[in-house]
Amino acid sequence: MADAQEQNTRRGPGRPRQAHVTRAVLDAVVALVAESGMNALTMDAVAARAGVSKPAMYRRWPTKQDLVIAAAESRIGPLTVPDLGDFRAELRALLLSRMESYRRPGVSRLLAGVIGAAAEAGAEPGAYRDYTLRVMSETRHLLERGVSRGDVRPDVDAETAATLVAASLAFRLVGEQRLPDEALVESVVDLIGRAVGSRP
Amino acid sequence: MADAQEQNTRRGPGRPRQAHVTRAVLDAVVALVAESGMNALTMDAVAARAGVSKPAMYRRWPTKQDLVIAAAESRIGPLTVPDLGDFRAELRALLLSRMESYRRPGVSRLLAGVIGAAAEAGAEPGAYRDYTLRVMSETRHLLERGVSRGDVRPDVDAETAATLVAASLAFRLVGEQRLPDEALVESVVDLIGRAVGSRP
Repeated sequence: MADAQEQNTRRGPGRPRQAHVTRAVLDAVVALVAESGMNALTMDAVAARAGVSKPAMYRRWPTKQDLVIAAAESRIGPLTVPDLGDFRAELRALLLSRMESYRRPGVSRLLAGVIGAAAEAGAEPGAYRDYTLRVMSETRHLLERGVSRGDVRPDVDAETAATLVAASLAFRLVGEQRLPDEALVESVVDLIGRAVGSRP
Repeated sequence: MADAQEQNTRRGPGRPRQAHVTRAVLDAVVALVAESGMNALTMDAVAARAGVSKPAMYRRWPTKQDLVIAAAESRIGPLTVPDLGDFRAELRALLLSRMESYRRPGVSRLLAGVIGAAAEAGAEPGAYRDYTLRVMSETRHLLERGVSRGDVRPDVDAETAATLVAASLAFRLVGEQRLPDEALVESVVDLIGRAVGSRP
């Protein structure tokens, strides 16, 4: 499964072999969760599918939670939206990129699995929260750029606005169990644009 | 654990014994998930803790998914906001009620468990989605009432707005792993009020 984002965000310090192992392992995690759910995800099953040794996996991802968060981040990770001169245009670009990621096979089940894994006994507290904050960081940046530019209200509560933006597509996918589509993106851009825009 | 909502939404056809069993079982589910996570939740553990027979449980809740959705619904279920003459006031009342539910011990882990359970192999497709839609239904109603009253734009996309409202507190709790508080509620009321309001 092609995944340029994964290669960019996860490659090690210039070792092609390491990047290949990472890619194989995270693809195997996504495929196994998509096919059979989290309960079927074992270190043995991932190692077999990826064709890597278990020690190599444990060195990188000591727990199942580490593994599923890394897999989720290989599909839905940090992104950067260039300055388009307009907050709504930038928000649309961000949400369309997320929408495409969320619509990929297995991603819905993977995200549900990450959420469930974070609530299991022994899961590292904060690992999933930190991932969420990485995913949300670009929205904060777009809001700040909009305030500087003047098309976002200077008194906007950027923290809550970023929560609404991140929550919209994620909740549609995981809570309502429907794939986010372009109509949803346009409607979120309209609602958030009205909520935070400096023009009435 | 006192829970008036649970009694209202879950009682059977006037049999006090049945209501008592329901209450004991769902309280046991919440307590077990809060203490040890979903993997520790077995029919045996729930039956022992609630002091009920397993056949009585299986008749009502054939699967673990049925059990955790019923437990979640006993804590976060349908609610009704009376006509307060003002959309923002009604939205605030709805969100404050949800906020209180979300802040109760064990609810965060329970919701994460419900999401995880819905993605497991063999989980009934649609059961969690139907629960989500029940939780969201009052927001739709408030938006429609606001359109009739005139303080919500008649061209509002009520479906997306309801997603944003439901998503805000749920994502703060489950995604960002922070308890929703009154400051969040006020900020969501402000943002959604601007997004859907008929007054600029």
